[in-house]
Amino acid sequence: MDFVVVSPSEHASVVSITLFVALLCACIVIGHLLEESRWMNESITALAIGLCTGGVFLFTTKGRSSRVLVFSEELFFIYLLPPIIFNAGFQVKKKQFFRNFMTIMLFGAIGTLISFFIISLGALGLIRRIDIGLLDIGDYLAIGAILSATDSVCTLQVLNQDEIPLLYSLVFGEGVVNDATSVVLFNAIQNYGQEHIDVVVVLRFFANFFYLFLTSTALGAFAGLFSAYIIKKLYFGRHSTDREVALMMLLAYLSYMLAEFLNLSSILTVFFCGIVMSHYTWHNVTESSRVTTKHAFATLSFVAEIFIFLYVGMDALDIEKWTFVSNSPGKSIGVSSILLGLVLAGRAAFVFPLSFLSNLTKKSPDEKISFNQQVTIWWAGLMRGAVSMALAYNQFTRSGHTQLPGNAIMITSTITVVLVSTTIFGLMTKPLIRLLLPSSQKHGDCLSLEPSSSKFFLQPLLGNEQDSEVEVRGQNITRPTSLRMLLSKPSHTVHYYWRKFDDAFMRPVFGGRGFVSVLPTSPTDQHDHS
Amino acid sequence: MDFVVVSPSEHASVVSITLFVALLCACIVIGHLLEESRWMNESITALAIGLCTGGVFLFTTKGRSSRVLVFSEELFFIYLLPPIIFNAGFQVKKKQFFRNFMTIMLFGAIGTLISFFIISLGALGLIRRIDIGLLDIGDYLAIGAILSATDSVCTLQVLNQDEIPLLYSLVFGEGVVNDATSVVLFNAIQNYGQEHIDVVVVLRFFANFFYLFLTSTALGAFAGLFSAYIIKKLYFGRHSTDREVALMMLLAYLSYMLAEFLNLSSILTVFFCGIVMSHYTWHNVTESSRVTTKHAFATLSFVAEIFIFLYVGMDALDIEKWTFVSNSPGKSIGVSSILLGLVLAGRAAFVFPLSFLSNLTKKSPDEKISFNQQVTIWWAGLMRGAVSMALAYNQFTRSGHTQLPGNAIMITSTITVVLVSTTIFGLMTKPLIRLLLPSSQKHGDCLSLEPSSSKFFLQPLLGNEQDSEVEVRGQNITRPTSLRMLLSKPSHTVHYYWRKFDDAFMRPVFGGRGFVSVLPTSPTDQHDHS
Repeated sequence: MDFVVVSPSEHASVVSITLFVALLCACIVIGHLLEESRWMNESITALAIGLCTGGVFLFTTKGRSSRVLVFSEELFFIYLLPPIIFNAGFQVKKKQFFRNFMTIMLFGAIGTLISFFIISLGALGLIRRIDIGLLDIGDYLAIGAILSATDSVCTLQVLNQDEIPLLYSLVFGEGVVNDATSVVLFNAIQNYGQEHIDVVVVLRFFANFFYLFLTSTALGAFAGLFSAYIIKKLYFGRHSTDREVALMMLLAYLSYMLAEFLNLSSILTVFFCGIVMSHYTWHNVTESSRVTTKHAFATLSFVAEIFIFLYVGMDALDIEKWTFVSNSPGKSIGVSSILLGLVLAGRAAFVFPLSFLSNLTKKSPDEKISFNQQVTIWWAGLMRGAVSMALAYNQFTRSGHTQLPGNAIMITSTITVVLVSTTIFGLMTKPLIRLLLPSSQKHGDCLSLEPSSSKFFLQPLLGNEQDSEVEVRGQNITRPTSLRMLLSKPSHTVHYYWRKFDDAFMRPVFGGRGFVSVLPTSPTDQHDHS
Repeated sequence: MDFVVVSPSEHASVVSITLFVALLCACIVIGHLLEESRWMNESITALAIGLCTGGVFLFTTKGRSSRVLVFSEELFFIYLLPPIIFNAGFQVKKKQFFRNFMTIMLFGAIGTLISFFIISLGALGLIRRIDIGLLDIGDYLAIGAILSATDSVCTLQVLNQDEIPLLYSLVFGEGVVNDATSVVLFNAIQNYGQEHIDVVVVLRFFANFFYLFLTSTALGAFAGLFSAYIIKKLYFGRHSTDREVALMMLLAYLSYMLAEFLNLSSILTVFFCGIVMSHYTWHNVTESSRVTTKHAFATLSFVAEIFIFLYVGMDALDIEKWTFVSNSPGKSIGVSSILLGLVLAGRAAFVFPLSFLSNLTKKSPDEKISFNQQVTIWWAGLMRGAVSMALAYNQFTRSGHTQLPGNAIMITSTITVVLVSTTIFGLMTKPLIRLLLPSSQKHGDCLSLEPSSSKFFLQPLLGNEQDSEVEVRGQNITRPTSLRMLLSKPSHTVHYYWRKFDDAFMRPVFGGRGFVSVLPTSPTDQHDHS
């Protein structure tokens, strides 16, 4: 059936896709073999394989090209990022996330802003002294915005939700929330100079942030609730698991694309869509749909993550960018070191003060963020990855200015920051967590990347969530200390009223655990709601 | 994180993807609501929604464009077709398929050739009389090749493997095998005129076909065995379901792309890769990987099928192609009718004679293809779909010849054939099967498209295959008539020796049922191999 005359461009894309898929397979197999290592993780393996392949390509093409696929923002933001963020929302421990909600918002909104100012002003002050060519104020502000955002994809690779749930939810949650900050920040930068900074501008900034935050989450929640309602109402499982899975996948993707279309924060949207889907929709579908969605979403996310790191590694060696730099290697190293230092300082400047502020509101010492945890939060959020690269390309190659030495140096410096932070900082995160938080090792010695998937399949499906729900019910209803805890911990009170509202109004309409007509999955499940 | 300056082209692709995903969701929901209907199927729903949306677009853009996405061969052959064909191989009833292997080869190789000659010569004789502009012999041969290939995607939509397994394996298998025929045929057409037809040319044609058939299946089998070996050897399930699923998915896709790269028949390759993976690899993975792969592959295939029909429907109304035709509507209707008639005649000319030949080799009347079944085989293979459209675009728009009226009429006629055959023939297939083969209705009144997915999830996983294997073991080993059957049915003998070879050499190396260290899935499973 496919006796197509293959055009040269089509043949080239066949070749590059074939090679890329083969490399992805190699990354999975090698990543599996290296899993026992204390240092490595899948992303560093992929990055290393990407760099090696890039080197081989550079050698065989005699320095013409190192890339199999050209780095494209569209591929990255439209196809690779959505499954990763959606899956993170789908598998996140909701209770842990919402309990730390205020701290996460503090880090994501105020923290990113502090980091942005420090990196921008520092770059303005320090890089200006090195003569690297024409860069205007907008470029310095842009590099601050680009390097102040934590890369959620990298965070997923080094932090384990099962072992350090608090830190995971703080650092990853921050990475999701600061997407909204970045959108607002970028819009503000585009209008900079038109107005001088005063109270009104600052207030408008925060108003914009909250508007964007609320509309984005509302869109995500709406998409999730819509999927829950339609699957419950039409009872898709009656005929087909495939249709249920397809509908969940497509509606989640639709929420991301709609947010992108409406200029909202698409990352926030699809993250909340994942949370809502795992709370309602997932319980309305058949048993096989549950297993399939859980693992299919995780697999898509896993492949997209490896794809991104492979891509970044392969792209880093691209010769074109480095030709300018080779004339002045000292300057390039200087700029890269300054930026790395600013990233370290910018993050330190908000993690420690904001943790202190957050600790002031907590009464129980168990809930406070210890100093060791603060150091881990600071360190684990240092990595900058594909997002920073995509944004640097966007900022410094647009409108044909690639040829300017200043722009070339900014791009290669960003790549250096990405490579150094992902490899060096990434390699040291596991040992650091081992050193600072030895209690997190109680779950066993093997730091597996997909915590729950190695167990028998029914257990992880019911495990995480049931644990937390049983725990909450226990705290609020049966444990003797429940009333005192209710008064002393406001987040628990919010959670208690949310559960009452959920049980009374949301679950009867949108389904969820205990409101489904499918077979009970285990005796525990049935007992829990009888 | 995504404060990217969205370029106009990127914004346009965001808009079209958003709209397309929304339409896909609508197709799934409406398809679900219409499922009970005796006539409709998901593909016709998608085609109708595509046509309607195209109409609305045509109206709102005042006749400028009807398309959201431009029909691209790359999108079709590289992304949409592989999951559909792979899933068909993965879920096919292997015993039924291999029992009818000779008949399938006869239909796929000789049958397609007969159909090709009838359509080409008929078009040459009849369409030449209508003055539609310059077309050379190559164009007539190409239209024969384009319209002689059955569309496997359409076949999947109207035939149900559980209800009519014999017909399904014959018609679908033919569609897979004739991909190799098409590749060889097309290469032959490209060299036509350089040599006159004699015995050597005909022999070379068949030698090429068998070479292509063998190399393509060998590549697919190798990819499948490789995945089985590596997953068994490294025991991926120890740590992660996601890795197993990702590896299976990527290796299957790699086999398709490698075949494409090596100019083999990629459809044959990925189909056999699916068969081998379901026989070996699927039994080496964890329980949750089995559920996930079964449903995730089916879901991907399901979405790709709907995508294709939506796409074809939306593209059909594109105004540019129809402007030439509007000057001479009579000619266009004439050409379309001639082509439709030739498709009907070409298929009849091989289904009935070859069925007769096939029946001669069968001794038991149960194994013969009855006349009613022959009519169904003829009818169910009449549909031409997206593959024909993609090939017609390729043939009649290349090298800038779009503006020739002859080419424009050939394209619109192909679209007409596709629309008429998919809707009219497609709508009538279900009632026809009901009328001619009433016995197939024993499985219940509801003709669901995904036969096994509505049952509880463990049953379909073990059901199909186990049934057939138990049956075979019963026939060969315990039933009193086994020796007589062994002598009278050569295909059973082949199957018997294959099983001995499989048990002795293949399964110890590549795994498969009974050679895995995971938990037994059900008591039956354990009993079967104890």
